[in-house]
Amino acid sequence: MQRHDPQIRHFASDNYAGAHPEVLAAIADANGGHQVNYGGDVYTERLHEIIRDQFGQHAGVFPVFNGTGANVVALTSMLPRWGGVIAASTAHINTDENAAPERIGGIKLLTVDTPDGKLTPELIDLQAGGRGDEHRAEPLVVSITQSTELGTVYTPDELRAICDHAHSLGMRVHVDGSRIGNAAASLGVSLRELTTRAGVDILSLGGTKNGLLYGEAVVVLSPEASVGLPYLRKYMMQLSSKMRFASAQLIALYEGDLWLRSARHANAMSARLRATLDDAIAAGAAPGLRFTQPTQVNSLFAVLPAEATARLRETHHFYDWNSSAGEVRWMTSFDTTEADVDQFAADIIASLS
Amino acid sequence: MQRHDPQIRHFASDNYAGAHPEVLAAIADANGGHQVNYGGDVYTERLHEIIRDQFGQHAGVFPVFNGTGANVVALTSMLPRWGGVIAASTAHINTDENAAPERIGGIKLLTVDTPDGKLTPELIDLQAGGRGDEHRAEPLVVSITQSTELGTVYTPDELRAICDHAHSLGMRVHVDGSRIGNAAASLGVSLRELTTRAGVDILSLGGTKNGLLYGEAVVVLSPEASVGLPYLRKYMMQLSSKMRFASAQLIALYEGDLWLRSARHANAMSARLRATLDDAIAAGAAPGLRFTQPTQVNSLFAVLPAEATARLRETHHFYDWNSSAGEVRWMTSFDTTEADVDQFAADIIASLS
Amino acid sequence: MQRHDPQIRHFASDNYAGAHPEVLAAIADANGGHQVNYGGDVYTERLHEIIRDQFGQHAGVFPVFNGTGANVVALTSMLPRWGGVIAASTAHINTDENAAPERIGGIKLLTVDTPDGKLTPELIDLQAGGRGDEHRAEPLVVSITQSTELGTVYTPDELRAICDHAHSLGMRVHVDGSRIGNAAASLGVSLRELTTRAGVDILSLGGTKNGLLYGEAVVVLSPEASVGLPYLRKYMMQLSSKMRFASAQLIALYEGDLWLRSARHANAMSARLRATLDDAIAAGAAPGLRFTQPTQVNSLFAVLPAEATARLRETHHFYDWNSSAGEVRWMTSFDTTEADVDQFAADIIASLS
Amino acid sequence: MQRHDPQIRHFASDNYAGAHPEVLAAIADANGGHQVNYGGDVYTERLHEIIRDQFGQHAGVFPVFNGTGANVVALTSMLPRWGGVIAASTAHINTDENAAPERIGGIKLLTVDTPDGKLTPELIDLQAGGRGDEHRAEPLVVSITQSTELGTVYTPDELRAICDHAHSLGMRVHVDGSRIGNAAASLGVSLRELTTRAGVDILSLGGTKNGLLYGEAVVVLSPEASVGLPYLRKYMMQLSSKMRFASAQLIALYEGDLWLRSARHANAMSARLRATLDDAIAAGAAPGLRFTQPTQVNSLFAVLPAEATARLRETHHFYDWNSSAGEVRWMTSFDTTEADVDQFAADIIASLS
Repeated sequence: MQRHDPQIRHFASDNYAGAHPEVLAAIADANGGHQVNYGGDVYTERLHEIIRDQFGQHAGVFPVFNGTGANVVALTSMLPRWGGVIAASTAHINTDENAAPERIGGIKLLTVDTPDGKLTPELIDLQAGGRGDEHRAEPLVVSITQSTELGTVYTPDELRAICDHAHSLGMRVHVDGSRIGNAAASLGVSLRELTTRAGVDILSLGGTKNGLLYGEAVVVLSPEASVGLPYLRKYMMQLSSKMRFASAQLIALYEGDLWLRSARHANAMSARLRATLDDAIAAGAAPGLRFTQPTQVNSLFAVLPAEATARLRETHHFYDWNSSAGEVRWMTSFDTTEADVDQFAADIIASLS
Repeated sequence: MQRHDPQIRHFASDNYAGAHPEVLAAIADANGGHQVNYGGDVYTERLHEIIRDQFGQHAGVFPVFNGTGANVVALTSMLPRWGGVIAASTAHINTDENAAPERIGGIKLLTVDTPDGKLTPELIDLQAGGRGDEHRAEPLVVSITQSTELGTVYTPDELRAICDHAHSLGMRVHVDGSRIGNAAASLGVSLRELTTRAGVDILSLGGTKNGLLYGEAVVVLSPEASVGLPYLRKYMMQLSSKMRFASAQLIALYEGDLWLRSARHANAMSARLRATLDDAIAAGAAPGLRFTQPTQVNSLFAVLPAEATARLRETHHFYDWNSSAGEVRWMTSFDTTEADVDQFAADIIASLS
Repeated sequence: MQRHDPQIRHFASDNYAGAHPEVLAAIADANGGHQVNYGGDVYTERLHEIIRDQFGQHAGVFPVFNGTGANVVALTSMLPRWGGVIAASTAHINTDENAAPERIGGIKLLTVDTPDGKLTPELIDLQAGGRGDEHRAEPLVVSITQSTELGTVYTPDELRAICDHAHSLGMRVHVDGSRIGNAAASLGVSLRELTTRAGVDILSLGGTKNGLLYGEAVVVLSPEASVGLPYLRKYMMQLSSKMRFASAQLIALYEGDLWLRSARHANAMSARLRATLDDAIAAGAAPGLRFTQPTQVNSLFAVLPAEATARLRETHHFYDWNSSAGEVRWMTSFDTTEADVDQFAADIIASLS
Repeated sequence: MQRHDPQIRHFASDNYAGAHPEVLAAIADANGGHQVNYGGDVYTERLHEIIRDQFGQHAGVFPVFNGTGANVVALTSMLPRWGGVIAASTAHINTDENAAPERIGGIKLLTVDTPDGKLTPELIDLQAGGRGDEHRAEPLVVSITQSTELGTVYTPDELRAICDHAHSLGMRVHVDGSRIGNAAASLGVSLRELTTRAGVDILSLGGTKNGLLYGEAVVVLSPEASVGLPYLRKYMMQLSSKMRFASAQLIALYEGDLWLRSARHANAMSARLRATLDDAIAAGAAPGLRFTQPTQVNSLFAVLPAEATARLRETHHFYDWNSSAGEVRWMTSFDTTEADVDQFAADIIASLS
């Protein structure tokens, strides 16, 4: 029984959206009859082929339930018990996972402040010391988010520079790719160019934020970079018994171009919103509105007066990003429509007057 | 695209089955539009009402991804950091969760051997010592499985005796109810009689094994027995962002009698298999076959000659239970048909001759 | 200022005793001036030589603060994050460390009941299954206690059989040797015969219970059996900054024969007590007294009537071992005197009449 | 046997020093005879009285082995499993404990950059958000170091401001007081003024760095701020079986004024070194030497040319503090002599020419 109005959409988060119809269809196809549990099914088998096609012949794939699960399972598999992970202080693993990396993986995060959510070789060096020193958490992994929590993207060249630098220091590279599709769509490059070809070792491959019910995957690009992942996935409670359904969804997303179509659309909706508002700002019609980051993917970061925020919130859901600075985040998703954007832009402008 | 034959079913585990059609329909209904993430949606709100209807007005519900997740989140919320849990040595938390209770919850399991997977007040006493002793893990929770891993059930009276005894010793009671529906169907009692009324404090309420894609729930029956559950669920990586889909499935299962219809059917299929084979044994037509446990729910435990097991395995999936003893487990599910059972019984008998 | 009567001794535990005078002298010698902290001192350097002399040229030594620390650091260094340890259910790591192996090391203990605290290859096999199965804690280490918590000892042949069996199954062997000196003294063999020569991989080498103020050591006999021990020792909070004092004590104990003299004496005192009481039993002078284990080292396990226990406790400290069975433990130490024993024996006999 | 030259001292760390003679004498007094293990002895009982005298009648004391142990046991006892601790990024708990707070306590450190190692109410506010948000580690404790890792001290007023602010936000305050004696000596105030009177809830009370062999103590000033400390101390492997020796040392330090005499002396030696070098700088005799922090306790932080550092290191041990900046740390201890200081100053000046 439907208990909600399926015509109402917000600009809060891409996980306010539901599932793409092609994803639901894939689940229905995978249903019926019996399949071996815990990943011994034909859908998980097929997923392996697809991931190899997308990421290269050495790639291995391990479906998990959610993004925090993907990150913690991936990072823990890359580290000995005394390891540390260099990350931007704005990284999701540092700010939004209630210390799951620390509490579940026993991982020390070695954080660096950044202007735009992006690490660089120079920023990495700030935390790269202490190798071989029993008193320090040994920095053995660099983790970056693509696209970042601030809606910015790493170019393939930037990724390669980070991977080369990390590898030269004996560190591995993990990418939190819960929105990697948005980055690829923004840059117009393949997933492989953003990962395997750039030297990335392990990827948390997003699903939920790009139209799945649930389900992400740890993709191991460098087999030697990860140890014991099946065991970790199990005891970290990320092993689905009826895995065929997670795999079928991931197949639906990555076998063809659904991931790209959906990400491209979400990005386009953010770009449309940005353009409309930039025009309004230029026309003096949006007093007090200012963007704090470029709009490269499906999120916008803006500062606006507190009264405007309050007025807008009466009819729309969105996130406070930095309350003391009056900064908010607006986000689009695969199902955001042009009409949604135009109405929201109008409401923002109205709230400012 | 369907990649498997939906007409093939096994007797391996109830999580070899897929999802019940009513569950898929509920997901489709919950789809579309935007809903607040992480449980702020109308489906999760409705689930709370249903759980209160089923378990009482103090009950709280916390959907999670899987059964191990439900158990570890539940048990950890019931214990201080130095706590221990008394459980049967055959308990799923002890044998099949790769030490997730220990590694994720920091919990010590204080195990007791049992003949049939069931604890009793007397067996509990074997591990109930050491209260207030800093050298021991403090036994503060009793965890039982209903129905048990050996296919047996606790009656309401047995449950009440355990709860009364545990409470009198200052301990709380957790029920791993991944198959509680099968127990209720077997006993002909309500879920409430098996939990709230018997004095159970916290329940891991099953979903996946009774026809969901994924999804279980921690049901808190005694609010004072659990601390910080939302935080634990988050950092233990069991918080679904699009929770509406987990909740919609649980609604489909527990709003009406789907849980009971499915569990009753699965039980009936096991009973049919047992009856047929008991008849064969009585008729001398099943040489070497012997049952090791009563068949109270949807599983059968039998010993048969190794050659028979090997022959049967050529065409059927099922579990070895105790390899050295030649013991196997056969299990039915919501979608097992009478024809499946009759064919399997015939194949078993054929394998024995 | 002395606040206690140094003439009063009990039969409770060998850690009721203080430090041997030679140990205090060694600490005084190590004092004064500056030494590199955290083990970079000349005493720790010398300890390495002594340990190599005692255990073989591949042996490495890592001083720690206490016995639980030695066990948990040692075991964790032997295991991947998903590992399990097969141990007797009576093992100190299972019963007396408040789940430190589980909570600090993330280790699953796979326990086996034994009649006398001793594992055998056959008993090990009861928990050796599940290798390579992500659902189980992988059994990769066997841990035994020498002498055991029940005052029994493993002969070199028994040890070799266990090590050979464990190694043949791909498992390593750890010895909790908090009282290994008592075992060696009892058997009349060297420490090396009980460890390196028998195939033991890692040893928790006792100190405190044989006359140190504090201090044990992890001795790595098979370098390939242990990973990252210095890091583990640090973050498990077992790295002493002024390590020279721990090392100086261990030198005092193991450079010459202090360990053997002290252990032999403690054993002799238990043997004397046993002989006196056995005589009394034979003479009918100790009604209700019965020994439950052989007296091979410095502890005695006896059953006696509750009233006798209560009367004896008015003047002596000792441990209840199994309250429901009326079993107690009496223990001697390096400083127990013959007069102490004779008085205690007399008091026991008096309590029984 | 003495293996080192007791006349050689360095300026590396106060834990390069040995034990104060009065401490050794106290150990000898506490030796002999039997005392109840694990803290049931008369010395630990006396320590409780002394701590109450020093810190107030509600104070409780729990001896532990080392400073990291004190910090992690203390902080964990103050937090639920989902808690976070606000600390300076230079805090020992963040930089020098190999993530023991995270790995052992499951604690998230919420760090803030500071110019001088000192938090303020304003700096605390930077990390004080996220209360009640399941996605964040909940900030429930502020931890400060007194004296700080940069040799600075908090005045009683500054402490009170921090405690009042933290309490007003529902947070507790922990002080890492491994060198609290140096702070008290520097400020000319009592330990109580720096703790109980300022509103501090829990203190890690230093011992080792002020002349003990080993041993620190967790001092609970606000009983309601700490839960389950005896259990935590045990499973975190910080419970000494022969606790009388830790307690006797702490009695020796804190019963009279040994802590103050030793700290005052160490401070005076640093002040002497600073004065001599400041004079040299003023006289143009120390080209390239510059101090980066005030010298308030027993440590000096200076920048000097790399060649000078290298030359000085040929004969003296000291720490690099910030290698890229050429910053070093020099530290004095209770046993540093005026002659040591004068020689070191001369050698520094010589290295610069």
